Amino acid sequence: MKTVDFFFDFSSPYSYLAATQLPALAARAGATIAYRPFVLFAVFKAAGNDMPAKIPTKGAYLFKDLDRWARHYGVPFRFSSHFPSNTIKAMRMVHVAADQGKAEAFSQAAFRAMWAEDRDIASPETLAELARGVGLDAEAALAAIETPAIKDRLRADTDEAITRGAFGAPAMFVGDELFWGNDRLHFVEEALKG
Amino acid sequence: MKTVDFFFDFSSPYSYLAATQLPALAARAGATIAYRPFVLFAVFKAAGNDMPAKIPTKGAYLFKDLDRWARHYGVPFRFSSHFPSNTIKAMRMVHVAADQGKAEAFSQAAFRAMWAEDRDIASPETLAELARGVGLDAEAALAAIETPAIKDRLRADTDEAITRGAFGAPAMFVGDELFWGNDRLHFVEEALKG
Repeated sequence: MKTVDFFFDFSSPYSYLAATQLPALAARAGATIAYRPFVLFAVFKAAGNDMPAKIPTKGAYLFKDLDRWARHYGVPFRFSSHFPSNTIKAMRMVHVAADQGKAEAFSQAAFRAMWAEDRDIASPETLAELARGVGLDAEAALAAIETPAIKDRLRADTDEAITRGAFGAPAMFVGDELFWGNDRLHFVEEALKG
Repeated sequence: MKTVDFFFDFSSPYSYLAATQLPALAARAGATIAYRPFVLFAVFKAAGNDMPAKIPTKGAYLFKDLDRWARHYGVPFRFSSHFPSNTIKAMRMVHVAADQGKAEAFSQAAFRAMWAEDRDIASPETLAELARGVGLDAEAALAAIETPAIKDRLRADTDEAITRGAFGAPAMFVGDELFWGNDRLHFVEEALKG
């Protein structure tokens, strides 16, 4: 069974869009999704890249483009009033969830919280609610994300993505092949089926 | 009948990919294509943008991505050994061709020359061949591209695209709506049919 390594940051709206499509895509391809958050700021820095919205006309365009994709997919979307948000703790919590087989449930819930429900996923209260919502012990999860072991896993995945050639989000790998962006999901599906 | 304003630079491989698809797309939508070359370097400069390949890992990725799209479309593609090429004269010649109802024929021929046949479209010899190939008087066309009137038209279209919000290529407009990139053709088609 093939796997797509799905590297994302909750702060990336195009990663959210990709996340809304990947479960059905993986099911069609008989593949699995590895939810692997990375720190997009660190990826940009390592690659010599920058936030796309640093270019004013591009920023204005991207707002419209995001709405078009959401409508195209038929998924809820509202540009987060908390953007740019510190998503580090939420991303660490994916690893805590992963240890209980809940990486997908937690990741999808956190993406929706940020990009459909306009909730502040940087706040411990929201994180606790999201944790409870997928059946985690919220207090234990909030404690775990402050441990060196969990912090190291987020750093290690970020470093791995950079080493494998990621320069933006989402970065999806099927074996050695990198696919960048929500707009390359059809190529991801081909690679998983190939 | 709706029109898509197709702003492109022959130096842009993603513009070539879009050009391979637009005639059939326009036919399906019952729309027309306005071939409007612009000077991508000037667009980047005005927008505060830069060539995507300035980021090394992104440059490496884009080579693979271009090949995937060409295979996906079933069109010939070979990364130009003349890149980055001075495409100004070829783009001026689109205007000369337009005056004889041959903007599409010339644009498509020049795109193929650069991105499928690895020819040097900066050279007067190649331009003369391309002009003759679509039924233009090659000598007259080479003279015309040095006239202020033709030079001004390329500048004016470049300025117009910048004013309308373009920051990269291809930039396609349906009315006020901007669509950026070969990977947004499905949205262009929707807009033309809407």
